[in-house]
Amino acid sequence: MSDVSVSLGANKYGKAENRVVRVVRDTARHEITDLNVTSQLRGAALVDSYLKGDNALVVATDTQKNTIFAFAKEHGIPSPEQFLLTLAEHFVRGFDWIEGGLWQAEQFEWERILVGGEPHDHSFVRKGQGTRLATVQVLDAATHVTGGIKDLIVLKSTGSEFSGFPRDKYTTLAETDDRVMATSVTARWRYLPEAVEVGIDYNRLYAEVQEVLLATFATVHSLALQQTLWEMGKATIEARPELAEVRFAMPNKHHFLYDLSPFGLDNPGEVFYAADRPYGLIEGTVVRDGVPPAPDAWLDVPTS
Amino acid sequence: MSDVSVSLGANKYGKAENRVVRVVRDTARHEITDLNVTSQLRGAALVDSYLKGDNALVVATDTQKNTIFAFAKEHGIPSPEQFLLTLAEHFVRGFDWIEGGLWQAEQFEWERILVGGEPHDHSFVRKGQGTRLATVQVLDAATHVTGGIKDLIVLKSTGSEFSGFPRDKYTTLAETDDRVMATSVTARWRYLPEAVEVGIDYNRLYAEVQEVLLATFATVHSLALQQTLWEMGKATIEARPELAEVRFAMPNKHHFLYDLSPFGLDNPGEVFYAADRPYGLIEGTVVRDGVPPAPDAWLDVPTS
Amino acid sequence: MSDVSVSLGANKYGKAENRVVRVVRDTARHEITDLNVTSQLRGAALVDSYLKGDNALVVATDTQKNTIFAFAKEHGIPSPEQFLLTLAEHFVRGFDWIEGGLWQAEQFEWERILVGGEPHDHSFVRKGQGTRLATVQVLDAATHVTGGIKDLIVLKSTGSEFSGFPRDKYTTLAETDDRVMATSVTARWRYLPEAVEVGIDYNRLYAEVQEVLLATFATVHSLALQQTLWEMGKATIEARPELAEVRFAMPNKHHFLYDLSPFGLDNPGEVFYAADRPYGLIEGTVVRDGVPPAPDAWLDVPTS
Amino acid sequence: MSDVSVSLGANKYGKAENRVVRVVRDTARHEITDLNVTSQLRGAALVDSYLKGDNALVVATDTQKNTIFAFAKEHGIPSPEQFLLTLAEHFVRGFDWIEGGLWQAEQFEWERILVGGEPHDHSFVRKGQGTRLATVQVLDAATHVTGGIKDLIVLKSTGSEFSGFPRDKYTTLAETDDRVMATSVTARWRYLPEAVEVGIDYNRLYAEVQEVLLATFATVHSLALQQTLWEMGKATIEARPELAEVRFAMPNKHHFLYDLSPFGLDNPGEVFYAADRPYGLIEGTVVRDGVPPAPDAWLDVPTS
Repeated sequence: MSDVSVSLGANKYGKAENRVVRVVRDTARHEITDLNVTSQLRGAALVDSYLKGDNALVVATDTQKNTIFAFAKEHGIPSPEQFLLTLAEHFVRGFDWIEGGLWQAEQFEWERILVGGEPHDHSFVRKGQGTRLATVQVLDAATHVTGGIKDLIVLKSTGSEFSGFPRDKYTTLAETDDRVMATSVTARWRYLPEAVEVGIDYNRLYAEVQEVLLATFATVHSLALQQTLWEMGKATIEARPELAEVRFAMPNKHHFLYDLSPFGLDNPGEVFYAADRPYGLIEGTVVRDGVPPAPDAWLDVPTS
Repeated sequence: MSDVSVSLGANKYGKAENRVVRVVRDTARHEITDLNVTSQLRGAALVDSYLKGDNALVVATDTQKNTIFAFAKEHGIPSPEQFLLTLAEHFVRGFDWIEGGLWQAEQFEWERILVGGEPHDHSFVRKGQGTRLATVQVLDAATHVTGGIKDLIVLKSTGSEFSGFPRDKYTTLAETDDRVMATSVTARWRYLPEAVEVGIDYNRLYAEVQEVLLATFATVHSLALQQTLWEMGKATIEARPELAEVRFAMPNKHHFLYDLSPFGLDNPGEVFYAADRPYGLIEGTVVRDGVPPAPDAWLDVPTS
Repeated sequence: MSDVSVSLGANKYGKAENRVVRVVRDTARHEITDLNVTSQLRGAALVDSYLKGDNALVVATDTQKNTIFAFAKEHGIPSPEQFLLTLAEHFVRGFDWIEGGLWQAEQFEWERILVGGEPHDHSFVRKGQGTRLATVQVLDAATHVTGGIKDLIVLKSTGSEFSGFPRDKYTTLAETDDRVMATSVTARWRYLPEAVEVGIDYNRLYAEVQEVLLATFATVHSLALQQTLWEMGKATIEARPELAEVRFAMPNKHHFLYDLSPFGLDNPGEVFYAADRPYGLIEGTVVRDGVPPAPDAWLDVPTS
Repeated sequence: MSDVSVSLGANKYGKAENRVVRVVRDTARHEITDLNVTSQLRGAALVDSYLKGDNALVVATDTQKNTIFAFAKEHGIPSPEQFLLTLAEHFVRGFDWIEGGLWQAEQFEWERILVGGEPHDHSFVRKGQGTRLATVQVLDAATHVTGGIKDLIVLKSTGSEFSGFPRDKYTTLAETDDRVMATSVTARWRYLPEAVEVGIDYNRLYAEVQEVLLATFATVHSLALQQTLWEMGKATIEARPELAEVRFAMPNKHHFLYDLSPFGLDNPGEVFYAADRPYGLIEGTVVRDGVPPAPDAWLDVPTS
């Protein structure tokens, strides 16, 4: 029918967005962990599932789902990173022909409801500040682990400038030495393989990184969102020796000064219109010097 | 062309979702208020804008938008309720033929970023627990005010039962004396007109109501989500004399015990699958006895 | 503990967003119907489920779900209206204490994939133009039925003006005799009870109403979105004698002329910026003269 | 303060989601093109905007926005691919230090409203079947162009099997020789650089590829979604010589047979529950043999 010949290129398959909630109820003081887990597998031998619909080697996506829920019982969820590592190891070691994959998790955090000032034993309210992220990538016999956060929405009402940019025929933007700067931070940090090997207190690191990100955003006098991003990444890597690099996506969520002059009113940085689209989109990676690059770690990992 | 004759029924028009951010910067310690405001007007005289496209009496939706932003400067935003009341008064008093309207606000709360344990002067992080709500309805010369909250997501990992329900041929649900109960609370409370008249500390009331809602959810041993709803409403009205009634919409966000028995594992309330759809949807209103009903207050106010 | 006494006001409960897909495969040429169904029940006797957590009369939301899926088999889904009527009748007649409820459906339409110009027997592509709506409300022994459509997005690139509106101190909008007008139509029409009684070809009516809405939007030279709304409602009621009234919510999805003058370019209605928020929001109802009003029909039915 | 030293890794910046609508009104029969355009720039010289907040070389994101809208007037929008190519060339040629970037577009399609069977001159309804995609990537002096489609939702009610997969201790899934198969196709195809050079009728190609994708989905008797993906890619590349490869992301939108046996009903493939999460997620690329790989083309291009 055709002289055209084609081959299968990059591929992976699995079960996405398994919403697993784990309750630890060994004592009256329950703990809960709430994850959204995606598991996808890769292997050269899977080619026939594409070319011929031969499923003899296809570990069913339903089986991947079952494994996630069973592992929540068998291994618990000490941290999203650790949970994904356990899953990855299971699939890669358990099936000869599975050479690797990508495992991703979102974690929704909960805090105890206060009753008369005391944290309740088994009642929780969703903490809305940011969603925790983790990935494990196994590719070419190497294992890469990242942590992260997204939807961490921050704003500073002063301490932000933007000026000195080039002007061409399409430039109309005025320079400013005082503006509102707001963004929704997505940050993903890659752990050094040797640190993963030794073991990391991922939960404590997450809490510390979140603190550093916020404090740096707060205290840097910003000449550009790019600069703020850089300083946030630098401070993060300085804070924790386990980190190889931090990748950011930071939308510039514009807050435009509303023009009140037609109404005889001045507006010295007081009334803003928060716009939806378009928005600035600043992306950058801060890398610890001397660390070998690992582009495989980021394969198919969403940028935001 | 046709013997059919038609008339204009219920109507209103305006500008929806004005995203106004107000910064108070009288001192180095800034305050920010972040609202999403909708303004809509009603009036019998507006009929010709529909029937003939005669705009002579149509206060433009663009004018309503300008007014919202100008008022943020002129009057400030002491609370969403107060801000909407000021807008309502302006439109109803300022234009003879505007007889009423519906004004709605969502408020996104921010908290100060901590730097070395100290709250920062002008850097903030979005607080994600619930979105504050307010409405002002002017209808038939009466003014109705509500406050509220939505997206307050709560979960209890025990202390919830569901049993004793009737069984018909379509009933398969097993009874349970221990389940996970989770919901996303939408609560809207109507203020007594006389309390609005006198003046209310809306912000303080909001904080207190949120605390009461959470504590009641936490402490009630639940036999049904309906019962939890009732107890939350009852406690709220008992807490604040300014409240006439509280209307709730509470989805039952099902957490199903994952069946681990095929893998030889038991699951004593430890591993759950958090489902999206379908979900239970429980709605109810708790009303202070002796208060005259005010269905007009709720006209076109979303139930969730 | 308190002198405050409270009572239960308006309430209902049930199972929301049951995603039922029905395949008719009596012949090789399959038919599919794809609904999102919500069922909620009301009854004075249910008060004890709220006050005491007594579930003796609570037809479980899980039972409501089972009934929906079972009825898709037992009764089929001739139309969303008819399917909801069958459900309503079942619950209200089948349980003494269930006095009424609200049943809602969204229908996602599919069309056959064309293969070599021929419609395929069992392969379909989702039709994206609008989502069909239906509701059945049973209240105080009366049954009310509505049909509808939402997310029908339309735009005209000329044939729309807006001028002659009043100007106050907050008015800055310029008058225009040629603009882009775009909206996402939500229309819900109430059927005359006597027409429901006799029986209606709901599917054919839906197709016809959609055609009338589109054609009227297209052909009316618009002086205001209000006027377009009115003409669309009028034409709809003139088209079908079964209709009592049509309720609309039509956001004015602003398309602003982009100011190209700084670049030495004119812009005679050619380049627009499509804004998200804020947006105009025009709502109105067109009512057939002589028809008794039925506010109960609309109780808790979303406006958009 | 620290011995840690860090460097800037991968980065880019720009303005995202510019919603530009272009009307061609040279005759009474208007044409409209509706795009969502993102422009991001890269260049080694931009490092100081990150490290020092030095904006001397930062072509402002606002300037990128202005350029997009101005170009819609100056150059028109013959196709999203062509429009992005013109933008890319402008930025890369116009500014010495801009070495490359990523430009992305979504196109929302509209069709003429029919009035009495005739397509209207200037009134349109949004076509909801799929969103058209395009990207232009400039990296290391090479230019890569892709087209695509997303949100093309398809379903077949029979002609789909899944069996023969391996069973381990976590496998519970039953084999099936008849199931509903539904997915939301995201496909992105890379154009051969030499074809881009010569010029391509992108709009005609898009229409043809959409037809091929749908027809192949319809006619392939599916043994696995992987196989369907492969056949869709193969047919696409066979259909158009300009295509180097096609990359797919296809969620398996599960339609589970509802268990009606407790109600004494059989369910021979008639009543399904359409689940939200989790879902299968099948990804794969089909590559024309003999074409050099171009991983740079896909850098930061979303997988779905």
